[in-house]
Amino acid sequence: MSSPTGPDAADDPHHLAQWRAIALLVLDFDGVLTDNRVLVDETGREAVWCHRGDGWGIARLREAGLTVVVLSTETNPVVSARCRKLGIRAIQGQADKEAALVALAAELELNPAQVAYVGNDVNDLTCLAWAGLPLAVADAEASVRAVARRVTTRRGGYGAVREVADWLLAARGTAFDSHST
Amino acid sequence: MSSPTGPDAADDPHHLAQWRAIALLVLDFDGVLTDNRVLVDETGREAVWCHRGDGWGIARLREAGLTVVVLSTETNPVVSARCRKLGIRAIQGQADKEAALVALAAELELNPAQVAYVGNDVNDLTCLAWAGLPLAVADAEASVRAVARRVTTRRGGYGAVREVADWLLAARGTAFDSHST
Amino acid sequence: MSSPTGPDAADDPHHLAQWRAIALLVLDFDGVLTDNRVLVDETGREAVWCHRGDGWGIARLREAGLTVVVLSTETNPVVSARCRKLGIRAIQGQADKEAALVALAAELELNPAQVAYVGNDVNDLTCLAWAGLPLAVADAEASVRAVARRVTTRRGGYGAVREVADWLLAARGTAFDSHST
Amino acid sequence: MSSPTGPDAADDPHHLAQWRAIALLVLDFDGVLTDNRVLVDETGREAVWCHRGDGWGIARLREAGLTVVVLSTETNPVVSARCRKLGIRAIQGQADKEAALVALAAELELNPAQVAYVGNDVNDLTCLAWAGLPLAVADAEASVRAVARRVTTRRGGYGAVREVADWLLAARGTAFDSHST
Repeated sequence: MSSPTGPDAADDPHHLAQWRAIALLVLDFDGVLTDNRVLVDETGREAVWCHRGDGWGIARLREAGLTVVVLSTETNPVVSARCRKLGIRAIQGQADKEAALVALAAELELNPAQVAYVGNDVNDLTCLAWAGLPLAVADAEASVRAVARRVTTRRGGYGAVREVADWLLAARGTAFDSHST
Repeated sequence: MSSPTGPDAADDPHHLAQWRAIALLVLDFDGVLTDNRVLVDETGREAVWCHRGDGWGIARLREAGLTVVVLSTETNPVVSARCRKLGIRAIQGQADKEAALVALAAELELNPAQVAYVGNDVNDLTCLAWAGLPLAVADAEASVRAVARRVTTRRGGYGAVREVADWLLAARGTAFDSHST
Repeated sequence: MSSPTGPDAADDPHHLAQWRAIALLVLDFDGVLTDNRVLVDETGREAVWCHRGDGWGIARLREAGLTVVVLSTETNPVVSARCRKLGIRAIQGQADKEAALVALAAELELNPAQVAYVGNDVNDLTCLAWAGLPLAVADAEASVRAVARRVTTRRGGYGAVREVADWLLAARGTAFDSHST
Repeated sequence: MSSPTGPDAADDPHHLAQWRAIALLVLDFDGVLTDNRVLVDETGREAVWCHRGDGWGIARLREAGLTVVVLSTETNPVVSARCRKLGIRAIQGQADKEAALVALAAELELNPAQVAYVGNDVNDLTCLAWAGLPLAVADAEASVRAVARRVTTRRGGYGAVREVADWLLAARGTAFDSHST
């Protein structure tokens, strides 16, 4: 999944610099950290499938000093539970995701060029337009893939975020340490 | 998934008018809003996989003024739970689905030309014959696909209903608003 | 999925007679009524995915007068729960599945030619050798597929049993009644 | 799935002897005994999909006298629950998996040539380098597949371990007994 020499164009110092500049990775939840499906039981309780490889990639990004945040339109206890396990912040209940993204970047004193955003559906389009590094999962809507700088080979919930982590770390020259937790 | 210029034949005003006339979308549950599988635990409790994209499409249809109803042969608390979340009506326990569909249309003062029905199996055939706009999911039985006006590219439970919503909204010229919840 | 004129060779009265003679359908559970996977939670409780189409096919077979029985090596409350819902008998905890199958046929006063068996793994081989109509799911072990009279196009847990039901009912000339529950 | 004459090179006595020498099979958990995904509910409880065929293969290996152990970086009650059911030992919470593997082999008085290890991700690389028979699942990371002696045709969680069991037993000339539980 990882490309050892860089994400986009290893021989293009300009592109590599763009990937290296990223300090904040913002992830949509449903369809990015999951396969966009939800398990519904007889009482209406929900559960979702997440991917261990995504969790591992996020842990490596945090070790490398990046901030990783989930940004979701809906408010859902499943999102809170997963982000608690991953040790990352979840911003939920945001009808206007772009406004929430801009506020987050301002709070962290980052400009768009320092922000990567991973989305899958049309309600991610404004965030993708704002972020310096817009990314899409393999099974994103066509209109989302069209505006992404790069599209993962893996589908949402099947390691797409791990793939993004591999790209970001490769650009920084950070090889995965097979001994680290 | 969406086709910007219309569902069937953008350049055919007659077909477009048929799609625009739809006021009621009736959905079979198992195999349409799910992949027709059911999770069974040690006590017999059931759960099913639903799709966030379907929920999103249904919300947009309701904003556009359409009525969306689930019509199911069996009575199942999972169906009730999912429809409660989606904010739509569930008509369950209907051995004669066609009679239930006719009664629903009468109650809403709609004629068949205003009704779209999405099915996947042979017990949907009479409803599909009655509805003005019969639709099938990608993995429906062959006999069901044969009578459908259009078959989704997505399987049941994997965004088939979102695809139908895209078609209906495109016919009305309603573009998805990426800011809306 | 159904073939309207018969399962094996519609124009071969001998084969058709063999399918029509079936009075008892015996099903392995894991890998036939499921995809052979099991959901395990933190306390060790298990759950499995079943298929609504399988349940529907089994209901039609029972209406047509066939006896349907699940025969499983292990004893598992999930098997009991699913069979209770389907209204069929579950014979579990049988290390020697062939002996259990022979005893069941004797109890029902049936000979091998009246028995169809659906399996997926090597511990089904002796039952498949005994039954008059040995059947395998699409993703069965190669050695199991090799001895099956016919192999379903659908995988276990994805409608394989519905497909078998379609074949058996087609051989009897029993068309699915789209009004029936 | 099984190859009756041997795993690697039936006509190569040297390779066959290597497979026959294995006394300990060590398995990574996530991605090997599962598909690397985890079901997360509203309270953060987790569940994973395991495969009945894997359980069956492990039982046959134990009957044949091999020791089977799960070695996992994280500590997770799901791992404990599954291993309890399989009747095998789980070594968890090992940031340095290679050190844990070396300690295990020393405890069992085995040398690397007697140890097979199945992995899927980069944190398995040091264990794979140490073990005499390094194996990878079909969907392992490229760097893991590159160092494996053999790669299963089945993905993790979809019978990959059953396939490894078939290879090990075939090398020993142990045919599966279809009567055994």
